[in-house]
Amino acid sequence: MQESHHQNADLLLINGLVLTLDDADQRFNPGAVAIGGGEIIEVGPSSDLAAKYRAAKSLNVEGCVVLPGLINGHTHAAMTLFRGLADDLPLMEWLQDHIFPAEQKLTADWVYWGTLLACAEMIQSGTTTFCDMYLFEHKVAEAAKAAGMRALVGEVLYDFPSPHYGLIENGLSFTESLIQEWKDDPLIRIAVEPHAIYTCSPDLLKRCSNLAERHGVPLIMHLSETETEVRQSLDQYGLSPVAHLEHLGLLNSRLIADHCVALSPEDMEWLAKRQVQVIHNPESNMKLASGIAPVPRLVEMGINVALGTDGCASNNDLDLFGEMDSCAKLHKVANLDPTALPARLALKMATRNGAKAIGLEEKLGTLTPGSWADVIVVDFRKPHLTPLYEPVSHLVYAARGADVRHSIIHGRLVMEDRNLLTIDINEVMDHVRIFAKTLRS
Amino acid sequence: MQESHHQNADLLLINGLVLTLDDADQRFNPGAVAIGGGEIIEVGPSSDLAAKYRAAKSLNVEGCVVLPGLINGHTHAAMTLFRGLADDLPLMEWLQDHIFPAEQKLTADWVYWGTLLACAEMIQSGTTTFCDMYLFEHKVAEAAKAAGMRALVGEVLYDFPSPHYGLIENGLSFTESLIQEWKDDPLIRIAVEPHAIYTCSPDLLKRCSNLAERHGVPLIMHLSETETEVRQSLDQYGLSPVAHLEHLGLLNSRLIADHCVALSPEDMEWLAKRQVQVIHNPESNMKLASGIAPVPRLVEMGINVALGTDGCASNNDLDLFGEMDSCAKLHKVANLDPTALPARLALKMATRNGAKAIGLEEKLGTLTPGSWADVIVVDFRKPHLTPLYEPVSHLVYAARGADVRHSIIHGRLVMEDRNLLTIDINEVMDHVRIFAKTLRS
Ligand SMILES: [Zn+2]
Ligand SMILES: [Zn+2]
Repeated sequence: MQESHHQNADLLLINGLVLTLDDADQRFNPGAVAIGGGEIIEVGPSSDLAAKYRAAKSLNVEGCVVLPGLINGHTHAAMTLFRGLADDLPLMEWLQDHIFPAEQKLTADWVYWGTLLACAEMIQSGTTTFCDMYLFEHKVAEAAKAAGMRALVGEVLYDFPSPHYGLIENGLSFTESLIQEWKDDPLIRIAVEPHAIYTCSPDLLKRCSNLAERHGVPLIMHLSETETEVRQSLDQYGLSPVAHLEHLGLLNSRLIADHCVALSPEDMEWLAKRQVQVIHNPESNMKLASGIAPVPRLVEMGINVALGTDGCASNNDLDLFGEMDSCAKLHKVANLDPTALPARLALKMATRNGAKAIGLEEKLGTLTPGSWADVIVVDFRKPHLTPLYEPVSHLVYAARGADVRHSIIHGRLVMEDRNLLTIDINEVMDHVRIFAKTLRS
Repeated sequence: MQESHHQNADLLLINGLVLTLDDADQRFNPGAVAIGGGEIIEVGPSSDLAAKYRAAKSLNVEGCVVLPGLINGHTHAAMTLFRGLADDLPLMEWLQDHIFPAEQKLTADWVYWGTLLACAEMIQSGTTTFCDMYLFEHKVAEAAKAAGMRALVGEVLYDFPSPHYGLIENGLSFTESLIQEWKDDPLIRIAVEPHAIYTCSPDLLKRCSNLAERHGVPLIMHLSETETEVRQSLDQYGLSPVAHLEHLGLLNSRLIADHCVALSPEDMEWLAKRQVQVIHNPESNMKLASGIAPVPRLVEMGINVALGTDGCASNNDLDLFGEMDSCAKLHKVANLDPTALPARLALKMATRNGAKAIGLEEKLGTLTPGSWADVIVVDFRKPHLTPLYEPVSHLVYAARGADVRHSIIHGRLVMEDRNLLTIDINEVMDHVRIFAKTLRS
């Protein structure tokens, strides 16, 4: 019987232009991806895989580009609740008159709905993994899990009382309980997340670092986001923020440092030497007028730089396609060099570099047999993606989130033909609209 | 009979959030727009207009924002043919090894199909008017007309022989014949378009200016796009590009100057004094590493600055929503000021300032009775546009072209529920794919 020659697969994508984004930059056109048990089983020519596999579900993705799901290296997902609440304001007025008072009204429930909204937006724009820092992070984990998204989450920690956990002792034990709770989950991982050097004492930073070390989880914090932060650090500690962390023994490859905009040459040397993971958030840095991170230089020095959107209060969307575009263009004009930050680097920052930053380079960021099946399908049969000379150029300079057609996370189809399969989006939007109405009144 | 109380309309948009963008920033929610004879008849509360008008066609736009169609102040539409052909290269290598050889293969026919593709993309991303400069512009006019788009077009003029018209004498007479041919058209207008000061002699520039003056049409050229252009001008003429044009008597409110990136304080004074129309193309300037135009300063000086995408070889899309976003963010970080270039200014640049730049402020750029009915409807019932505090914030910082649902130009519905009604888009994409294949071989 013929059937005996077939291998089983859960899902087979056929007839696409497959970009593995692996070391050899292997591409198959028409290509196919066979998925089973949450992993990628095989990638190759479409005809070969179509003949070899018997799949529970098969999707014809002709005219589409198939690539690894995008990784959002830094966000505050639930801040979708504040999207467009206040813009174009001086930083302190924005924070103190708008964002902080709004955050006082947050509850665990609102964080859940705001995060689900963010998951819907992220899935619809090709993101399959996100790294989150916020309040009520147990609800972020729950929402991501419900949405079928991969996430690295952690409760934001600082010395003053939190609207969620109160005193910092509770924050640290809450973080530890989260680590225990989600230990064996295939999608959700926990990080220890002190907010920043200006909100956390040296003692708290060391306790956080020890906690992360003890459990072998990432340590995530905002670092050198603005010149103001640097000046305050120099005043208070006589050291730049980066040097301050080096002094405390916090710089290592487990540290994920968000922003890294305001860096001295010595700071960059330390980041390189200690192999710190850097997350670049170009649109947030632009909108808040924080400055331009020296990304081409950091990459040249061998530092791993990934991409993030930051929260919706300072962006105001979670579309990594737009972020790749802004990133590639911003560094060209900042360096007056049209060869700076080429499209292939922007795409790598949003995929493989993101996987490396969160310690999952072996399992994410490329389409390789044995890696987790986080895969997106982008529909190129559109006016703004025609003609096609080079797919990577289109992905960075012309495609947008709305061009993503299917999304698969850990082998599960979470969006098919733009329909969200894990989220009741109308219910979520209705909940969030009620929150916005309450906030305004 | 009740019917006798009704006024007739061709099209009625009801139940939307209507942004007139007029001086008083009038908004109606739920609001309606009545359209007839290619013009806006009335804008007001939905219930009033629904009771007053009997419309041939009525569209319920609940959950959507209704606003004036966007105006692309500068593009080379047919360069869609070269989208993604070559990126991330040094400027001269990009031009001489890729763009110029590709342009040698252009024919009138290819320009027609490339422009139709651009029209499809522009309509699908909310643009209703575009200003074009390229070769074979009679075909650009024909394509825009076929697509039902409003356009200001003109053959690019320079001293060396053109692949289209040959000697410059022919170029000038060709321009004049275009002006005659399209004189009474409701959609298409013609401009005189010398390429730039480095490709046009002073004599040619003066002849162009006289021709524009004689026919009362705009004069359009690239101006001060890069520091290199400024240096060459100083070497050759002892004057900056702007001062050179002032010296030749070309600076006036009929001149539409594209880019204006590299400006001295004196240049800015001249542009303000002569009330020159400036078109800002932030994404092209970023991608080609040309520099950052001093837009907030120009606006402060009372200069009218509108927005353009430039051609698809240097962007690589024609989405003015993305351009507004980039514009608002770029000038914040360039000035280290989060209040620079607020969302409402970015939106004004893409609407009313564009109308003013092309001399049509009375007829375009706001939703006002008596103005031409160029109207777009943006669907806000989406995760990335939820919740809604301020529609202008979302239009600039979160919406993208794909969120445009309907588009109306001169009273004619050219896109309904994202279906293009004037263009056979599959035929167009097939034609352009054949061109790309030919070009590659
Ligand atoms: Zn952040
Ligand atoms: Zn141009």
